[in-house]
Formats: sequence, structure tokens, C-alpha cells
Amino acid sequence: MKGYSDRLGEVQEYYFSKKLKEVQQLREAGKPIINMGIGSPDLPPDRRVTEALKRTADLPDAHGYQSYQGIPRLRKAMADFYARNYGVPLDPQSEILPLMGSKEGIMHVSMAFLNEGDEVLVPNPGYPTYTSVTRLLHAHPVYFDLLEGTQWEPDWEALENRDLSRVKLMWVNYPHMPTGAPGSKELFAKLLNFVRRNDILLVHDNPYSFILNEQPMSILELPEAKNHALELNSLSKTFNIPGWRVGMLAGRQDYLQAVLRVKSNMDSGMFLGIQEGAISALSLDKSWITSTNAIYKARKYLVLEMASMLGLQVAERGVGMFVWAKVPSGTKAIDLVDRLLYEKDIFITPGEIFGSGGAAYVRFSLCVDEQQIKEALNRLVKYD
Amino acid sequence: MKGYSDRLGEVQEYYFSKKLKEVQQLREAGKPIINMGIGSPDLPPDRRVTEALKRTADLPDAHGYQSYQGIPRLRKAMADFYARNYGVPLDPQSEILPLMGSKEGIMHVSMAFLNEGDEVLVPNPGYPTYTSVTRLLHAHPVYFDLLEGTQWEPDWEALENRDLSRVKLMWVNYPHMPTGAPGSKELFAKLLNFVRRNDILLVHDNPYSFILNEQPMSILELPEAKNHALELNSLSKTFNIPGWRVGMLAGRQDYLQAVLRVKSNMDSGMFLGIQEGAISALSLDKSWITSTNAIYKARKYLVLEMASMLGLQVAERGVGMFVWAKVPSGTKAIDLVDRLLYEKDIFITPGEIFGSGGAAYVRFSLCVDEQQIKEALNRLVKYD
Repeated sequence: MKGYSDRLGEVQEYYFSKKLKEVQQLREAGKPIINMGIGSPDLPPDRRVTEALKRTADLPDAHGYQSYQGIPRLRKAMADFYARNYGVPLDPQSEILPLMGSKEGIMHVSMAFLNEGDEVLVPNPGYPTYTSVTRLLHAHPVYFDLLEGTQWEPDWEALENRDLSRVKLMWVNYPHMPTGAPGSKELFAKLLNFVRRNDILLVHDNPYSFILNEQPMSILELPEAKNHALELNSLSKTFNIPGWRVGMLAGRQDYLQAVLRVKSNMDSGMFLGIQEGAISALSLDKSWITSTNAIYKARKYLVLEMASMLGLQVAERGVGMFVWAKVPSGTKAIDLVDRLLYEKDIFITPGEIFGSGGAAYVRFSLCVDEQQIKEALNRLVKYD
Repeated sequence: MKGYSDRLGEVQEYYFSKKLKEVQQLREAGKPIINMGIGSPDLPPDRRVTEALKRTADLPDAHGYQSYQGIPRLRKAMADFYARNYGVPLDPQSEILPLMGSKEGIMHVSMAFLNEGDEVLVPNPGYPTYTSVTRLLHAHPVYFDLLEGTQWEPDWEALENRDLSRVKLMWVNYPHMPTGAPGSKELFAKLLNFVRRNDILLVHDNPYSFILNEQPMSILELPEAKNHALELNSLSKTFNIPGWRVGMLAGRQDYLQAVLRVKSNMDSGMFLGIQEGAISALSLDKSWITSTNAIYKARKYLVLEMASMLGLQVAERGVGMFVWAKVPSGTKAIDLVDRLLYEKDIFITPGEIFGSGGAAYVRFSLCVDEQQIKEALNRLVKYD
């Protein structure tokens, strides 16, 4: 054979893919690893959600190929969820595209809008998949710094002084992963104004809006947003079903049609049982989210204690399912991570995997039960 | 925004995506459509398979992100299935990559091996996704004819006389869709010899080997095959779970690692419940496949009668879940399809969507219950 594609040289195996294998190997070697590295909700979904899945699995005709756009009731449930929680009206026929997880949506959107050589604005720090997908398509990630001093807003001055003529897409994500910055309507307005002036399509990735966050927002709430922005959303974090792979893309019909054209040529619709479970999840009332958040809140309290014991500094206003913590000057975050892993059997994520802007930070996941966090705390007490 | 990607101009919305919407609209308008168009098994999976899914759904810790490579027991079950049914030994650690359906594998493999401008040998007639994925990546499909006279083997003379210096991948698929040609070890040997001499990676797409086929084969049975070929397989057709999205890629470790590098950057592992259901399916004994085939056989008998009533010609040795039938000269296949759809409310697939080599044919799916096929026959009796 005549060799691999050049694009392979552009990406490494996804960080978590490699690192979790190492954590797994340590576990298999008998190490009592406490994994605070990945944001995979450990809490179960609501019973009504799994019951809907199971009920569907029992139907003889529930196992065939599904429509690329999902069943109409799923799109309707997604539209109702947007109307109820964000006050955003969406046409379930044309302004919602269900996805097998919002991660695949990053590829589909990129394939629908990017040519080789196009530039893409990617937040630093930010979710590494924006970069790797961009590179896989031989487009160029152009990083824009988020600044701790302004609650991780973009460095507007630097952004405005760039040549943006070749930039086609801009990725943003508030509540922001990994920093936990909540974002605001004012920030969304600034972002929309920026992309409108520069003829850029903004893609807002919004999976964290219901975790420890008082004011869930969609960028589509803002007037005219649909002309300049798409929004990815996900049921993974909100309803504790990351492994199910259910996400969605919301926005203007013509943009979504372009994405569907890509998607329908590379995958299929999702399992009907998962769609029915998703409908059930989207219909849960707010008390369900409130009770989940009560658990995250208790965990966060303990994680903040851990951070404090390690001499780390944490911003007050963080939301979402992570704690983002700055290491003291003189300490390298990556060394702290390795020390915790190899000496204390605790795995946390080094901030630098989210870009250079994260190099002085570490990220704790709240997807670990209280007992384990207490055990981690105990191990730190014995830290010398 | 600065426009869509050029690649969108390379593909249309996937044919079935559009056509099934039309069929759906006709149904909603009250038409009693009998859909013999799509190969989506209508029979339910085995009860043990759905029970495994349901049992897993009840576990509190079954809903998190899964490994990109699936759980070890799934890879083991896939390896056992290959050993038992094809006599092919595969290392479950390194030579099997579970996929969310083999369709996504077409994109992943193509992204791992193709650069812009590379050429890809695509069978005519053949599965349209080989073409659309190739085009989405700005590589060039180079069609090779399959010849009815040699049981849909490639036109070797034409192939050998081509300039193949820029060809990196070659797609083949036996039992072949849409023609039902079974393939043979001799053919596989010829194919391997051809790609070895021309430094091409062969990708064999093998989802139909257990449907009405006495001799399931894997191309990996042949000596040295792993050096020159990858094989896609799928549980969709064999176990009646197309909507679940479970497939796999088998082959050499280094090739699979390249594909994993792409895949891990664009999607996630599949739902644990689906993996457990798949393990259960792969462990079913042969009697399960035999009993499914008895049903397909009875249906095929009726469909052959339909074909005969329509004056169509069907090859004797066809296998798989379709009947491929030639229209009489003077009739256009596409006209026959539309006449059946609009006058008789019967939907069959025109062969030309599989390439110019299919233009004189239509394809009937066997995924329709006997009652419906009898009803279709009745409607034809009244055909004038």
C-alpha cells in the first residue's frame, strides 16, 4: 500500500484515549486509582429514561435503520427543551438535527463549512477536539487567547488586530470547559457582533449549561443569532448518558441541511431505543437537574478542599462539572499531575492539554463519588 | 459567513435519505406503500440480545463514556466469531476495532489512508457510500466495471490496462450488494494478487456473508491477506440490529491504529448496553442464522415470482438479502420503479443508484414480511 494520509501526521491519538489506557493499566496492576480526569457523569440516568430504552428494545420493529434526522418526536422534544429552558423557539422540522453525540457534530460542521487551508478560530484554552478535527481536514486552527482576568473572555484586542479574511469558523463554548467560566449575554452579544462584522460562522458548543449553573443560556436567545451562529448541545452531561451518544445541532435550516448532507453520507440514524430514552430525558422536570446538582455541589466542596490542600488557586465563579485550579508559580502543573498519579494514585488532568493558556492549571472532574473524593483527601493529608 | 465547503458540491443528500422521505410522505398521505427498497432487516433480534441490552441499561454504571476500542469482551467475541465462522484467527487486542456501524468505517478508513487527489477503485455497480465518502475527501473515485457474465467479477482486462500509480484504496464487497454475487476464494486470491502487485490497500466490505449464503467467507482467510487487505463487517444484517450501529474493522495492527487515530478524534465509544447486546448476538449458535434464513428463503421465492410477473430476469446464484433483476430491453428501470411506486404503491430500488452498471436493473429487498410480498404480488396481478 502507498502509505497513510498526511492528515494522520496532524493529530495524535486523542489524549484521553491514551491516558485512560495508562490509568486502566495501573488499575489492572492493582493500583487503587481515583480517576478525577474525565468528565463522564458517574451518576445513573433517571429510571424513566432507562425504562423508555428498555420498553423500546422489547418492540420487534424497533431495531431497523433510523432516519438521519431522528424521529419527529425526538426533534419535537429537543425543540420543547430549548423553548422551556432557554426561551428559544426552534422549528423541529428544520432547525434541529439530532446527532450521535455532539463530538461527531464538530466533524460534521467542519466538513460542511471548511476547505483545506481555511482558518478556524479556536479558543485557548479549549476542548482539544476543535483543533484535531480542524487539522484532520487540513484547515488551520488559529488560536485566540481567553483571559483569566476577564472571566475567560477572548482577548478582544488581539482578536480585532488579526487578519481575519481567511477565517470561516469560530468555536466558542460557555459555560467554558475547562475553566468553568459561565459566559454572559453581554459576551454572546460581543461574539455575535464580532463574527457578523468579520463574516465568520460562530459555533457555540453548549453541553455544560445545566451543571451547577443558575442561568442556563443559549446563544440562540440573542436576536439575529441564527444568522451567524449554530449551537451544539448534548444530553450527556445534563442527563447522565454520555455513553449513549445523543447530541444535537440547532440553527438555521440551510446551515443544518449542509451538515445533514455530510452526515447522511457517513453515518446513520441512532438506535430507536436511545431516541426514546432521550425523549424521556428531555421531558424530565427541573427537579431532576436540581437533585443532580445537589450531589455535584457536595462533591465540589470537597474538591475545593483538595485544591486548597495542594496550594492551588480556584476562581470563585466557576460553573460546570470541573474545578479549574491554578498551580503556584514555581510548580509545573504536569509534574503535579504525575506526582499525584504515581505517588497518590489520583488522576487529574493537566491544563496544558487544553492549550498553552492552560499550562499553569489542572482540572478536577466532579464525576467521582463523595467517598472517593474523601479518600483522595485522606491520601493528600499524608502528602509530604 | 464565507460559504460552504467545496466538498458539499461533491455529494448529494444520500439517496435513501431523500427517497425514504418521499415514501414517508406518500404513506402519510394515506398510500399503502410496500417498501421493498431498503435492506433494513425487519425481523427482530434474538431475545437474548435485547435482554443483554436491557440488563445493562439497568446497571447504574453502564452509562458513561466507553473506550474508543470497545470493551475487551466485545473484541474477544468478535475474534471468536471470526475464528468460528471463517476460520480466521484475529488478536482481539490489536486486530479488531469495533465501529458504530461499518458505514462510519468507510469514512474512517478513507480518512486514514487518503490524501486529496488520491485515486480510489470503486466497483460499478456498488454501494454509493464508497463514492460519496471518497468525494467528500476530495479524492477521486475510479470506477471499475463488474461484469454480469463472470458473476460480477471485475473486468480484469480493463483494470490491468489502467494507470494505477495514484490508486491507494480499492473497495470490494462479496457477497456483493446489489447484485448478490457470492464471490469465491479464487476471486479473493485474484484480488489480493492484483492489489499486491499494484501497491494498493484492498478494503473488503463483508456485511452479507450470512444471508442466504452457504459458504460465508472472509478475505482474511487467504494467506498474506492481512498485509494487503482490511475487512469491514457488521452485525446489522446477520443479527437484525441495523439500527443499533455495530460493526467492526479487522486487520493488521498498524493499519487499525491509523484508523483509531482518526476515529478517536471524531467520535466516542458505543453505549455499553449495545456492546453487551452485540456480545450476546455474536455468541448465538448457527441455528439462529439458519432460522432467519428460512424466512428469507420463503420471501425470496415470492419475490422471484414478482420478478417473473414483471418480465424481469434474475441470476440463479444470487445470495444476500436482495434480489437483483434485469429489466427487458426497451424498458427503462427507473420508469418501472416509478410506475410501481405511483401506480401500485410498491417501492423498489432502481439499479442505477449503484452506478451506470446497474442501470438496466432493479433491486428488491427481502426485508419485507411474506404477507406484504403476497399483497404486492396481488397488486401486480392487476397490473396491465
